[in-house]
Amino acid sequence: MKHITLNDIEQMEKVYRLNLINAISGFKSANLIGTVDEQGIENCAIFSSVIHLGSNPPYLGFVTRPATVPRHTLENIRERKYYTINHIGGEMIEAAHHSSAKYPQEVSEFEKTGLSPQYLNEFIAPYVQNSPVKIGLQLMEEIPIKTNDTIMVVGKVLHLYIDENCIGQDGHADIEQAGTVAISGLDSYHGTTRLNRFAYARPGQPVKSIG
Amino acid sequence: MKHITLNDIEQMEKVYRLNLINAISGFKSANLIGTVDEQGIENCAIFSSVIHLGSNPPYLGFVTRPATVPRHTLENIRERKYYTINHIGGEMIEAAHHSSAKYPQEVSEFEKTGLSPQYLNEFIAPYVQNSPVKIGLQLMEEIPIKTNDTIMVVGKVLHLYIDENCIGQDGHADIEQAGTVAISGLDSYHGTTRLNRFAYARPGQPVKSIG
Repeated sequence: MKHITLNDIEQMEKVYRLNLINAISGFKSANLIGTVDEQGIENCAIFSSVIHLGSNPPYLGFVTRPATVPRHTLENIRERKYYTINHIGGEMIEAAHHSSAKYPQEVSEFEKTGLSPQYLNEFIAPYVQNSPVKIGLQLMEEIPIKTNDTIMVVGKVLHLYIDENCIGQDGHADIEQAGTVAISGLDSYHGTTRLNRFAYARPGQPVKSIG
Repeated sequence: MKHITLNDIEQMEKVYRLNLINAISGFKSANLIGTVDEQGIENCAIFSSVIHLGSNPPYLGFVTRPATVPRHTLENIRERKYYTINHIGGEMIEAAHHSSAKYPQEVSEFEKTGLSPQYLNEFIAPYVQNSPVKIGLQLMEEIPIKTNDTIMVVGKVLHLYIDENCIGQDGHADIEQAGTVAISGLDSYHGTTRLNRFAYARPGQPVKSIG
């Protein structure tokens, strides 16, 4: 194996370093965050940093750069307090990637990318129409990460939309069957194939497949 | 699509809710965190919450419950300040899942699960021998997430070990080729198949495949 030190990383050309370091955390979630500002201008942006924080109550977090340069997603969430997180399905990856282009605030990425906004049950933020899993959230907390001046945004799940056939008897949501993709690095999109599911692990007992 | 509200989620049976809500953030990274305490007792634990925070300097974060009940990974990181993050490869998933069993502090999960500790270049924390991507980190910051009393641990990458053949000319690390898996929900392990890679997206321009 090649040994790469912090000093090597610091000496790398910028894009080379971005490509390498963005891949080393492992596979990432692939989500579109939908927001709207007070003028009704919609925003839709791709994030690979959405993570699970808790189940009861249900909380999700995501990491973003601060709004020192225009960050429409963060600004809209601060303004309106509600936003949506929408899984990216296999047939959506090109449009989803397009949403990362830096369009000005007055332009809706929905129009430019071909993704369609969808309003459900009077929730103020737009969902993404063809997304296989759609989540409506309320802003709970903005946490500054001092080390590199990023922000973790924490939200509570108020609404969840998912195909009933993807939820197993034990509650497990089969997001592979739903068509959700994974991201690696800055720009690589992946379908998945289940290898196994395992029962809750207990000391001294062999791991049991629940496949 | 089925519409599930916060109230529905609050009323769910506990394990059903855990299975459902743990799956809705999307696919997750699959990593083993290696630590050692001051007595030299090693710990190896699976985490699906490792995320990318920055490339220059290179920072990774992960989320953990606070150490109000024994959390050997967090306690060891606090004690020693250095730890490792190791990708889980397809042939390691059973042993990796086993590491989530609650063994007491004096027991090394390495011994119980069949994973082997590996010490490289005088770094004090153990890597996981067969892991396809191994990272040595230094603790930078512990960030309390007040909303649900969890903690984000931020570390700086000091060392990175990866097969040279998995690094492209542009720096992109092909973790699919390396054999890294993804996790969904609490207990589901997935291999991946690349769908596409896309060039940096620019306003008004079609998205270009870089395959």
